[in-house]
Amino acid sequence: MKSIFGNALTVSLFGESHGPAIGAVLDGLAPGIPLDLDHIRLRLAQRRGGAALSTARREADEFELLSGFFQGRTTGAPLTILIRNGDTRSKDYGELKSKPRPSHADYTAFCKYHGFQDYRGGGHFSGRITAPVVAAGAICQQILAGRGVTLGTRIARCGGVADAPLPQDGPALKAALQRWDRSDFPVLDEAAGEAMKARIAAARAELDSVGGVLETAVLGLEAGLGEPWFWSVESELAHLLFSVPAVKGVEFGAGFAIAERTGSAANDPFYYDDRGAVRTRTNHSGGVQGGITNGMPLIVRTAVKPTPSIYRPQQTVDLDKKEDAALSIQGRHDPAIVHRARAVVDAVVALGLVDLAACRHGADWMAEAFL
Amino acid sequence: MKSIFGNALTVSLFGESHGPAIGAVLDGLAPGIPLDLDHIRLRLAQRRGGAALSTARREADEFELLSGFFQGRTTGAPLTILIRNGDTRSKDYGELKSKPRPSHADYTAFCKYHGFQDYRGGGHFSGRITAPVVAAGAICQQILAGRGVTLGTRIARCGGVADAPLPQDGPALKAALQRWDRSDFPVLDEAAGEAMKARIAAARAELDSVGGVLETAVLGLEAGLGEPWFWSVESELAHLLFSVPAVKGVEFGAGFAIAERTGSAANDPFYYDDRGAVRTRTNHSGGVQGGITNGMPLIVRTAVKPTPSIYRPQQTVDLDKKEDAALSIQGRHDPAIVHRARAVVDAVVALGLVDLAACRHGADWMAEAFL
Amino acid sequence: MKSIFGNALTVSLFGESHGPAIGAVLDGLAPGIPLDLDHIRLRLAQRRGGAALSTARREADEFELLSGFFQGRTTGAPLTILIRNGDTRSKDYGELKSKPRPSHADYTAFCKYHGFQDYRGGGHFSGRITAPVVAAGAICQQILAGRGVTLGTRIARCGGVADAPLPQDGPALKAALQRWDRSDFPVLDEAAGEAMKARIAAARAELDSVGGVLETAVLGLEAGLGEPWFWSVESELAHLLFSVPAVKGVEFGAGFAIAERTGSAANDPFYYDDRGAVRTRTNHSGGVQGGITNGMPLIVRTAVKPTPSIYRPQQTVDLDKKEDAALSIQGRHDPAIVHRARAVVDAVVALGLVDLAACRHGADWMAEAFL
Amino acid sequence: MKSIFGNALTVSLFGESHGPAIGAVLDGLAPGIPLDLDHIRLRLAQRRGGAALSTARREADEFELLSGFFQGRTTGAPLTILIRNGDTRSKDYGELKSKPRPSHADYTAFCKYHGFQDYRGGGHFSGRITAPVVAAGAICQQILAGRGVTLGTRIARCGGVADAPLPQDGPALKAALQRWDRSDFPVLDEAAGEAMKARIAAARAELDSVGGVLETAVLGLEAGLGEPWFWSVESELAHLLFSVPAVKGVEFGAGFAIAERTGSAANDPFYYDDRGAVRTRTNHSGGVQGGITNGMPLIVRTAVKPTPSIYRPQQTVDLDKKEDAALSIQGRHDPAIVHRARAVVDAVVALGLVDLAACRHGADWMAEAFL
Repeated sequence: MKSIFGNALTVSLFGESHGPAIGAVLDGLAPGIPLDLDHIRLRLAQRRGGAALSTARREADEFELLSGFFQGRTTGAPLTILIRNGDTRSKDYGELKSKPRPSHADYTAFCKYHGFQDYRGGGHFSGRITAPVVAAGAICQQILAGRGVTLGTRIARCGGVADAPLPQDGPALKAALQRWDRSDFPVLDEAAGEAMKARIAAARAELDSVGGVLETAVLGLEAGLGEPWFWSVESELAHLLFSVPAVKGVEFGAGFAIAERTGSAANDPFYYDDRGAVRTRTNHSGGVQGGITNGMPLIVRTAVKPTPSIYRPQQTVDLDKKEDAALSIQGRHDPAIVHRARAVVDAVVALGLVDLAACRHGADWMAEAFL
Repeated sequence: MKSIFGNALTVSLFGESHGPAIGAVLDGLAPGIPLDLDHIRLRLAQRRGGAALSTARREADEFELLSGFFQGRTTGAPLTILIRNGDTRSKDYGELKSKPRPSHADYTAFCKYHGFQDYRGGGHFSGRITAPVVAAGAICQQILAGRGVTLGTRIARCGGVADAPLPQDGPALKAALQRWDRSDFPVLDEAAGEAMKARIAAARAELDSVGGVLETAVLGLEAGLGEPWFWSVESELAHLLFSVPAVKGVEFGAGFAIAERTGSAANDPFYYDDRGAVRTRTNHSGGVQGGITNGMPLIVRTAVKPTPSIYRPQQTVDLDKKEDAALSIQGRHDPAIVHRARAVVDAVVALGLVDLAACRHGADWMAEAFL
Repeated sequence: MKSIFGNALTVSLFGESHGPAIGAVLDGLAPGIPLDLDHIRLRLAQRRGGAALSTARREADEFELLSGFFQGRTTGAPLTILIRNGDTRSKDYGELKSKPRPSHADYTAFCKYHGFQDYRGGGHFSGRITAPVVAAGAICQQILAGRGVTLGTRIARCGGVADAPLPQDGPALKAALQRWDRSDFPVLDEAAGEAMKARIAAARAELDSVGGVLETAVLGLEAGLGEPWFWSVESELAHLLFSVPAVKGVEFGAGFAIAERTGSAANDPFYYDDRGAVRTRTNHSGGVQGGITNGMPLIVRTAVKPTPSIYRPQQTVDLDKKEDAALSIQGRHDPAIVHRARAVVDAVVALGLVDLAACRHGADWMAEAFL
Repeated sequence: MKSIFGNALTVSLFGESHGPAIGAVLDGLAPGIPLDLDHIRLRLAQRRGGAALSTARREADEFELLSGFFQGRTTGAPLTILIRNGDTRSKDYGELKSKPRPSHADYTAFCKYHGFQDYRGGGHFSGRITAPVVAAGAICQQILAGRGVTLGTRIARCGGVADAPLPQDGPALKAALQRWDRSDFPVLDEAAGEAMKARIAAARAELDSVGGVLETAVLGLEAGLGEPWFWSVESELAHLLFSVPAVKGVEFGAGFAIAERTGSAANDPFYYDDRGAVRTRTNHSGGVQGGITNGMPLIVRTAVKPTPSIYRPQQTVDLDKKEDAALSIQGRHDPAIVHRARAVVDAVVALGLVDLAACRHGADWMAEAFL
C-alpha cells in the first residue's frame, strides 16, 4: 500500500512531474453519480493558483476520464483521471540529479530508490501530482454536496498575517464556506487577505518564500462517522493531510491550544437545541469526540511550510563528488503555495469523509441523492 | 479496517473497559525475536502512571501471550497479547448509559452503534484499551533497539509549564532518551517537571484536569523509510497518533511554527559530516522530507487534551428523557493523563516505524540482530 | 496481511495447536445482532466430528466471547472468540521437531520460520485452528439467515463413493440444506452415506485414510454480489476455501466438467419466471457470472485430500541429522476429515458472503433483520 | 478493494472494452529493474491469439508506460501501463443493453450497477481488460526469471482432447516450459495440439465454442513462500486465477483426484537428494503443503469454460420489455479462448508469486539480480 489509500473508496495515484502523464484511479464509486466536469476544472484552476501570485508552471491541466464514466455518470467501475504533462522543461533540472534541493524530497528519494528515481522536477514527489488528487477530491465534494455536506478551506495564517476568527454562527460559517469555494485566495477578512498577498509579494522580491496555516470546516456531517482506534475520522484525515507535500502539522478543534486549557474549560457541554438535536455549547473538540463525528462542524487546521524552492543560493551536497556544494535553484517556483495547497486540502478531506461514509453505509449511499 | 492497522505488521485491537479482557493480535512479526517480558511490564507500569499522580484504576495489567511465542522467541505466527480485566466496578457507570460525559466518546459511540455499544467505562473507546497497544509497542521498541534505533518521549508542556528545549547535540539527546525510558514522568529539566506536577496537584484540588504536549525523538533511523504520498512516515505516524485517545494535534519538526518562517529560515541545508554521512545543519524538517526519513533525528509532537473526566458538575443531556441534564462523574479519574499517554505515544511510533521498515526490508529484517 | 482476511468484515486468526488458546477477532460486525450461542456450539460439535468416526482429540471447545458482545447482542466493536486448549499431549509430538510428517505443513513451516515455529501438533498450521473459524462462520450464517439466505454443505464424494446428484428443484434443495444443517454426516442418499462410512472404517482398519469432495449450495442470495476482477465472489470464496487445511481444489457450478462442454451446452439461457424474476434454465454457472452472483443457487465444490496423518510407517527426513528417516506417527488422528471439514467450509463461505454483502450495503445491513 | 489486489505488490486495474483506454497501475515494484519491452509485447501477442484460431478484435495493443519507468528501469514509483482502445465497433453491441448474453456478465453487471454500467462489449468485465494484466504479469515473470524461477502454462485439455502427462523429470519439464514460452498454442504432444485445433475449427463451423484446462508449472521457487491461513500460496493464486474471466475451477497438484486416493497413496514421502536438498518422491501436493511452498515444482490447473459468445441463436430476456427474447450475437468472437487465457494465467501466477516473495523479502529483493 504505497501510493494507494482508502478502504471503501480507494485512490491509486501515479505519475511523475516530467513523465508523460499523471493520474489517479478511484475505485469504489457508486454507479449513477452525475459528474460536473466544470467543477473539477474550477478546482484544478484553484490548485494552479492565481496568475498574480504564481510564476509557476502554467498548464491547463486538461484531464481525461479514461474509465468508469459513461453517458455523464459514474458506472461503478474504477474511474481513471489522466492529465498529460505538457510544459516539462527538463533542462531546468539536470543539476538536481546530484545536488539535492534543501528540504525537498530529492535526497530522501535518492536514499529510498537507490538513485533510480525520476529526479526531474521531483518526480513522483512533485507537488504536481496533487492535480489528480484535486480532481478525485472534487468528485467526492460533489458526492458530499448531494448528501447535504458543505466543506471549505480558508487561509488562516500566511507570512505571519492572521485572518479573522471563524464565525461561531452556523449560517455565517456556511455563507463563508460558499464564498471560499469560488475564491482563489479564500479568507474571512479581505484586508487580512491583502496583507497576506503583500507578504507573498515581499517574499518574492526577497527571493524568499512564506508558509501558512489552512483551516477547513465541514458542515452538515452526520454524527457517527469514523471507526474506533485506528480508523478514527482524525486518523483518516490526518493520514491524508500529511500526504500533501509541505504539510508539517495537523490539529482538530482547539488543537495544540487545548493542551493549555483545563478540562473544565476544554470540555464541550451538551444540550438539546430548538429542533431536538443534540449539540455542544462550544466546539473545542472540532466536531470529533473519541475519533467519531458528533454532528457539530468538523474543524481541522493544517500547517504548510514555506515553499522550499527559493531563488537565494543555498548550501547542499554533491552526491556524485561527495562534497559540500552550493546550489541556485533555477526554473519556476512560487513564493507561497498555501493558497494552492488549499485546493488539495479540500480534496483529501472530501476523499476521507466519503471513504468513511461508504464504509458505514455502503457504496450506493454516494449516489442516492442523484437517482 | 476498523480496529486494525498496518501493512507489513498488523495490529488488531479488541476489548472493552468492563468486558472480560482486552488484547491485541500482532501479525507479521519475524520468527526468532527473543522478547524481554520485563521490558513490556515496565512499559505497562509507565502507562498506568505513578501512584502520586493518579487515582485511577489500579490493575496489575498482567498480560498473557496466547500465541506466537514459543521457547522465549516469536514464532512468526500471530502473537496475541491478552490482559484480563479485574477491577471493573460497573456500578460506577450506570448513569452514563443515558447521560454522555462531555468530550468523551459516550455520545458518539451511541450515535455510531445505535445504543448497542458497551457503555460501561467507555467500552471499546476507553483509554484502558491502550494497554495492549503499549505491550505491542514495547515489542516493536525491542525490535528497533536490535537495529540500533532509540526512541523516547518526554513531556514538553503540561498545565502551561514548558520543559527545556531539546538538545541539538546527538549524544546529549541520546542520553536524555535513555533517561526518559526509565522515568515515570520524563522531562529534560527536573524543575520544570516538578512545576508540572504541582499544576497537576492543583488541578486535582480544583476538581479539574490539565493537558499537555508530548515530544518524541527517534535516533538511529535509516534514511529512506516511508512511501511517497499516502504512506509517508508522517502519514503513518500521524494516523497512529490520532488513534490515541485525547490526541488533538500532531506536528513534525518545526511543525506549526514552520508556517511562520520564510523558506530561507525554514530549509535545512545539507552537508557531509566527518564520517562522510549526509546531514542537515538544522532539523526543522524533523527528520522527514517528502514524507521519507532523511537520517536526522525524527521529531514529532503530540497535543494531549486535559482529561475530560472531571469531578466538577457538568452540563449534558439525558438521551432517554431527551432533555438537558446535569452530570457529576463519579469513580476514578486522573487530573492528567499526559504522562501516561507518553507510553502509548512511544508504542504507536514504534509500531509505525517497524511496519514501514518491514515493508521495505521484509519481515526477517526484524529478527536479524537476534539470530 | 497474513492470518487476516476480509475487507468490510475482517477475521484475524491466532493460536497454535498446543499453545494456551486459539481464537479469532471479527471486526466490522454491525451492532445489534443477537447471537445464538447454541448454534455456534452445534457448529463446533460438527467440526469435531462424530465419535464413531473420529479417534481425534476430544475437546469441548468451550468458547468465550471476550469482546464485542454485550447484553446478548453484538456491539459493533471487534468481537473476539477465545477457545482454551486443554487436551494437549505435547509428548506425542516430540519426534516431529526434526522429522516432518509427509504432506503436512511441518517441513514448510520449518522453512518459512527458520525452525522457530511451534512445531507441536502442527502449531499455527494445525486443523485445530479451524475451530474459531467455525465459530466466526456460525455468526455469519446467523446474519445470512436473517437476510433470507440458506447455505449448507454435503459430502458429495468420500473414499470413492458418490452421493446422489443435487436436486434441481428449489424447495427440495432447501429442504436438503436444512437436513444437512443438523447432521454430522450430511448426504442426500443415506445409503451412499453408509457406504462412505464403511470406507472410512475400512481405511482405519488398514491404518490408512480417505479424502472426499464437499458440495456447498447457497439459496436466497441477491443478484449483484461480488466485485469485478480481483474481488469476484469466486475469488473471495476460493481464497477462503483454499485457506482451509487439506483443500486442493475448488470449482463453481459445472466446474472442471464445463471445460468439456461446448458453449451451446454450457451456457445458461435466461427466462422470466412466474413471479417476474430473471432466472436461468440451467445453472452450469453455479450462480456466478462474470464473478458476480446472478440470483440462482450458488454452487461450489471443494476437494479435501485424505488425512495426511496415517498410522502406517512412512518415509521422511531427519532435519537434524540431515539423512533419510522412517516415521511412525503416534497420537490421535482421523481416518477421514471430510465430514469435519464440512463445518469449516460452511463457515468460510458464510464469512465471504457477509464480507461481500457488507462491502455493498454497509455494515448496518447485517443487523437490519434483528432490530 | 475492488479492482485492486496485492499486499506488497499491488495491481490496480481499470478500463472498459469500448472506453478510451484500459490499463493497470503496479505499485510496490523495486527501483532498478530493467524491463524487456519486447517480452511484454510477445506476451500481449500471445494473449491476442493466433490469426488462424481467432476472428477476434485485432488490435496491436500498443502499450505506453505512463509512470514509474525512467532510463530503461523501474523507478520504484507506481508503474502505469496504458493501452488505448482503437477498434471499438460500438454498433455491434447496441442490442446488449437490454438483452443480456447468456453466461456473460451482462446481466450481473446490470444488477450490480443498477443499469449504469458501460454495457458496450462487456465494459469493465470484458476479457479485453486482461491485456494490462498480461503486461503487468510479464514484468513479474522478468523479476522471477532474475531470481531463477521459470514458469509456463500449457493446454492440458481442449475440446475433449488431452495433451500428454507432465514429465516428472526436472530438466525435461524445464525444457518444456521454455518451449511453451515461445508458442502460441503450448502443448507437450504436438499431435494432441493439432487435434485440439481441429476441434476448435469444428466448433467454429458449428457456430459453437469449446473450453479447456490449462496446467501451469513453476520451477525454481524457494521453499517457504506463502502465509498460513488466509494468505497461503494456494489462496493467493486461486484468488487471482478466479479473477480471470471464464475460469470455473482451480486445483493444485493432484487436485480433485487426490480426494479419490488413500492417504498412503496421496502423501509425498521426503528424502534428501544428491545435493543434500530435501525433496519429495512424488508431488501430489503440487509443491504446496500447508499453504506454503516446499521447493518442489508448483503445479496448478485451471478450468476455462467455452467462450459464452456463440453465433447460434440463444434464449435470453429483454430487460426493458420484461419478457423472454431470442438473441443472435453478432460481432467478433472466438470459438475458443483457452489458448489466449493461458497468457493471462501465466501473468496472474507471476503476479501472485512476486507479491508473496516481496512480502517475505521486501521490495528490493525484486531488483537484486539486476543491480
